[in-house]
Amino acid sequence: MLPSAGALRPLGLDQVRLSGGFWGERQERNANATIPHAHEWLDKTGWLGNFRLAAAGELAPHRRRGREFSDSEVYKLAEAMAWENGRGGSAPIDELSTVVAAAQEPGGYLNTVFGRPGQEPRYSDLVWGHELYCYGHLIQAGVARLRTGVEDALTATAIRAADHVCVEFGAAGRQTLCGHPEIEMALVELYRVTGSSRYLDQARLFVDRRGQATLPDIELGRTYYQDDIPIRERTAFAGHAVRALYLASGAVDVAVETGDDKLLAAVVRQWERTVATRTYLTGGMGSRHEGEAFGDDFELPADRAYVETCAAVASVMLSWRLLLATGEARFADLAERTLYNVVATSTSLDGRAFFYANPLQQRSAGSALDPTKPWPRATSSERAPWRDVSCCPTNVARTLASLGGYVATADHHGLQLHQYAGGTVRDGETELAVTTDYPWQGSVVVRVDRTGERPWRLSLRVPAWAGEATLVTPEGVERVGPGYAVVSRTWRPGDQVRLELPVAPRWTAADPRIDAVRGCVAVERGPLVYCAESVDHDSVLALDVVNVDRSAPVTERPLPALGRDVVALDIPAPTTAAAGNGWPYGSINAEESEPGNLTLVPYHLWANRGPVTMRVWLPLDRR
Amino acid sequence: MLPSAGALRPLGLDQVRLSGGFWGERQERNANATIPHAHEWLDKTGWLGNFRLAAAGELAPHRRRGREFSDSEVYKLAEAMAWENGRGGSAPIDELSTVVAAAQEPGGYLNTVFGRPGQEPRYSDLVWGHELYCYGHLIQAGVARLRTGVEDALTATAIRAADHVCVEFGAAGRQTLCGHPEIEMALVELYRVTGSSRYLDQARLFVDRRGQATLPDIELGRTYYQDDIPIRERTAFAGHAVRALYLASGAVDVAVETGDDKLLAAVVRQWERTVATRTYLTGGMGSRHEGEAFGDDFELPADRAYVETCAAVASVMLSWRLLLATGEARFADLAERTLYNVVATSTSLDGRAFFYANPLQQRSAGSALDPTKPWPRATSSERAPWRDVSCCPTNVARTLASLGGYVATADHHGLQLHQYAGGTVRDGETELAVTTDYPWQGSVVVRVDRTGERPWRLSLRVPAWAGEATLVTPEGVERVGPGYAVVSRTWRPGDQVRLELPVAPRWTAADPRIDAVRGCVAVERGPLVYCAESVDHDSVLALDVVNVDRSAPVTERPLPALGRDVVALDIPAPTTAAAGNGWPYGSINAEESEPGNLTLVPYHLWANRGPVTMRVWLPLDRR
Repeated sequence: MLPSAGALRPLGLDQVRLSGGFWGERQERNANATIPHAHEWLDKTGWLGNFRLAAAGELAPHRRRGREFSDSEVYKLAEAMAWENGRGGSAPIDELSTVVAAAQEPGGYLNTVFGRPGQEPRYSDLVWGHELYCYGHLIQAGVARLRTGVEDALTATAIRAADHVCVEFGAAGRQTLCGHPEIEMALVELYRVTGSSRYLDQARLFVDRRGQATLPDIELGRTYYQDDIPIRERTAFAGHAVRALYLASGAVDVAVETGDDKLLAAVVRQWERTVATRTYLTGGMGSRHEGEAFGDDFELPADRAYVETCAAVASVMLSWRLLLATGEARFADLAERTLYNVVATSTSLDGRAFFYANPLQQRSAGSALDPTKPWPRATSSERAPWRDVSCCPTNVARTLASLGGYVATADHHGLQLHQYAGGTVRDGETELAVTTDYPWQGSVVVRVDRTGERPWRLSLRVPAWAGEATLVTPEGVERVGPGYAVVSRTWRPGDQVRLELPVAPRWTAADPRIDAVRGCVAVERGPLVYCAESVDHDSVLALDVVNVDRSAPVTERPLPALGRDVVALDIPAPTTAAAGNGWPYGSINAEESEPGNLTLVPYHLWANRGPVTMRVWLPLDRR
Repeated sequence: MLPSAGALRPLGLDQVRLSGGFWGERQERNANATIPHAHEWLDKTGWLGNFRLAAAGELAPHRRRGREFSDSEVYKLAEAMAWENGRGGSAPIDELSTVVAAAQEPGGYLNTVFGRPGQEPRYSDLVWGHELYCYGHLIQAGVARLRTGVEDALTATAIRAADHVCVEFGAAGRQTLCGHPEIEMALVELYRVTGSSRYLDQARLFVDRRGQATLPDIELGRTYYQDDIPIRERTAFAGHAVRALYLASGAVDVAVETGDDKLLAAVVRQWERTVATRTYLTGGMGSRHEGEAFGDDFELPADRAYVETCAAVASVMLSWRLLLATGEARFADLAERTLYNVVATSTSLDGRAFFYANPLQQRSAGSALDPTKPWPRATSSERAPWRDVSCCPTNVARTLASLGGYVATADHHGLQLHQYAGGTVRDGETELAVTTDYPWQGSVVVRVDRTGERPWRLSLRVPAWAGEATLVTPEGVERVGPGYAVVSRTWRPGDQVRLELPVAPRWTAADPRIDAVRGCVAVERGPLVYCAESVDHDSVLALDVVNVDRSAPVTERPLPALGRDVVALDIPAPTTAAAGNGWPYGSINAEESEPGNLTLVPYHLWANRGPVTMRVWLPLDRR
């Protein structure tokens, strides 16, 4: 079930339990609200019903509901349920398994859009049809079941589909690709859990086949689906962000399993350039609405930041794979940033509404959305209960349900903690209890509850944002820098280590090449990016004309309206009247300034108090 | 043929001749290069052939070529030829007239996409089918012929089509709309030239019908085609920019002809808000790639500025209508800015390649385009010879061919000059000769060559950008401010007036609410916006890290590579090394700065010397 190589070994969901705190509470909400909510909507929209109709031979084209990729939402919900049950839950996955299995055709083909009387033939539209993409998600759902110890109708269906793909698209099959990468990593995961190398071979074929201009040039260009340049030759992620990051994840999986260091190095190089030039302060990726795509280097507008939630999920998957392969803290750093500032942002406080795009500035407040209707667009100034393209809710659900797996790893020296969340971590003879109010407070206490006799190393990640931290061990107190703080000793049950991370608010500037936020600063606190919302201010327009001074004091205070532990920030910030003579260019005159105050809240909690304007980047007063 | 109301009266193409100079040369190039070029491509692509096949009864769906709106390109080329011939040219319009006329069906229906065996039925896809949009362009081509004194197969075809529309979509017909406004202004123009009020009634019906949510909600929202809010209630232009501006133009036409002052005031109000908050320094409108649409107020990114060429053409049409209706100089000011900085930008020096989108910053240099192949996308870092969606070349062609009509007007007090171009203006007993090297030089000499005995007023527009100008009349020298400088006297042949506009380079800042260009300045000279191109600098990356100081001297010099009279500018501008430690946010450190020089060229001439990076807005040095 494990990668056959790499620096670190992942732990199973039965080895890590999160209890309460930031992520533990979100896992509970995921189980109690988001997963049932998605299930209801899949029923209500008929996307689940498509499978029932298919099984009954009644799926005429006019009866099918949803977009061409709607099957994948059923699979992603099944995956979320599989992980949820793997961590002790009781989500009703058997219903989904049965419905999906019954729709599979002899030979393993499974898709509700193609191949029936009146429908277009199988694989007649690989560019937009999403058949292999949907298999990818089916296979990942099956893998989630197998990795949590279950074999059932869903796992058998997934394996039959994978076998079908290996025949149909193998070395002797159709020499082509799906318009949406995803199946690559699914096949490697299936190889890991089954040991059957045909899946790995097929994944490698798909990775190598892409970038050869097999798919047609379209309005968005072949870059859209990464078929313009082989991934080995690319220098930065480009095109549709989710596609690019899923492909890169699959490429890392292939590289690790085949010992292809050049392929791994190519992905690392692209990750580095992308993080240095094409990533938002939130960790969000993919700035363009057009093609849901990465922009050019430093093309990172705050107001039109697309930052699809699914791209953040994909980025976390990629960072995780690179962390396992290399053991380098920078990958866990980006995962942390992305989890707290995009993945956590996506879902409303009640777990039943979701952002698809996650901009860093909202210029107009919009209006409240109807919670009973799917929203037809990706963008919205409020979270939507569901969308015509509703890829994000189930993607977040599967991420949260499996989040325990991203927290800690092991190697032959000991255990590593990458993300800080209250709970327990178990591996072999060792068991740790983690106690923390992170990210609200910076103290993380790790207690060794069980341990073998031999010495081992406990590694605790010190995020790059921290600069420096304090580590308190049984041996004393030391200052530790970014990376992993390692405590190597012989442990006794009851031994404790405490890491103190400096979560005081800090001002953050941007590289001047990011033109869109020139002359602005942002405020961060621990791993959290903050923002200003109009709801905390007199006028929705105030955020247009506010100015800050980085020498001003920042005051912390609780904001219980957004959660028990939430810390809000207050800073003095004058508003400056704008000129406005009908033409917004010229020798702009000195303006009047009025004293004022700005309240900042964690960005991931924005838009939970009705329609608002919002901004992360705050103009500096430079008159 | 004239508007029945309004402050100013337009002149016919036979009354205004442009000779040489900025626009005269462009008219010649349009006649000699662009019009033949578009004709060749319409043949080569089969878009003209569609009409031939239709006439021969051989237009099976698989034989049709081009997008659903390709008929309109044939009509726009015909319109360009009609105006060209009206100003003395000899474009081969008869061929187009014959081909188009032969394809019209009994009853007046004409469209090569719908209604034949195997095609979808007429008016079965009003949302995307563009049937009424295409009629609009057909009718405008017919109007161009009629207004230049010709009745032929094309004019008869256009009138038959308009009559068909009045029956089919009239008060007793289909109570619906086309997804793309355009026919509204065409019908009013046809009313003016024929006197038949049914066309005006139909135009008013279409204007009033829009905004009632007749068309479906789509991914882009009903705002995309302005069917969300009646135009009388809207506060700023929104949605697809070309659609919005064509609709507004039609609404002004209806308002003027029906004496509907409220409707006129509503459009003026939207124009004001749009110019104050949603317009680029170039006059360009429509910032978003997604939906080719207006953004929110102050959402004006330089690098992703969409600024479709056709939206600029539409904006000039709208400004012109508002100028005629009100006589206010601000409308001519915007038309000037848009003509020099977007319409002129669109076309290459040789007249055979075109921009569709006109961004104010190009971050990556791209590569040269194949001059023999249509480019599949709207965006390109080089001008393309043709596109799959090739609306812009013919739109620019018809604008340039009819540009004489935008230069001057008359009223019962005398003549008004709105745009400065060398040539002659004639109205009744009066004839003027205009001599100028504008926009390169600021001197405009107007000589009265013929005149009646009675006194009359000569009005010369002083652009708002000028601040103040010098007017030299037979009576003496005076300083005049923005608006119209009026010389009221009894004229004798040979009398001269000279207007001296201050075209020295000037620094321009932006309203601080335009976040995308905070901390930057631009340089303008006369009506021209300037930009820096990487071709004039050592490294394509230099433009990423350049800084300017507005107290630095600006030096003028000729740049013959871009044209005989072209003035380039040199300014000292240090480059500042960027930090680049792998994550572009944090406490960005003081950076090293190296002295350097920046060359600026007129923005409308950019990308004529191979693939380049480019920027209009220049970061201020603020360390």
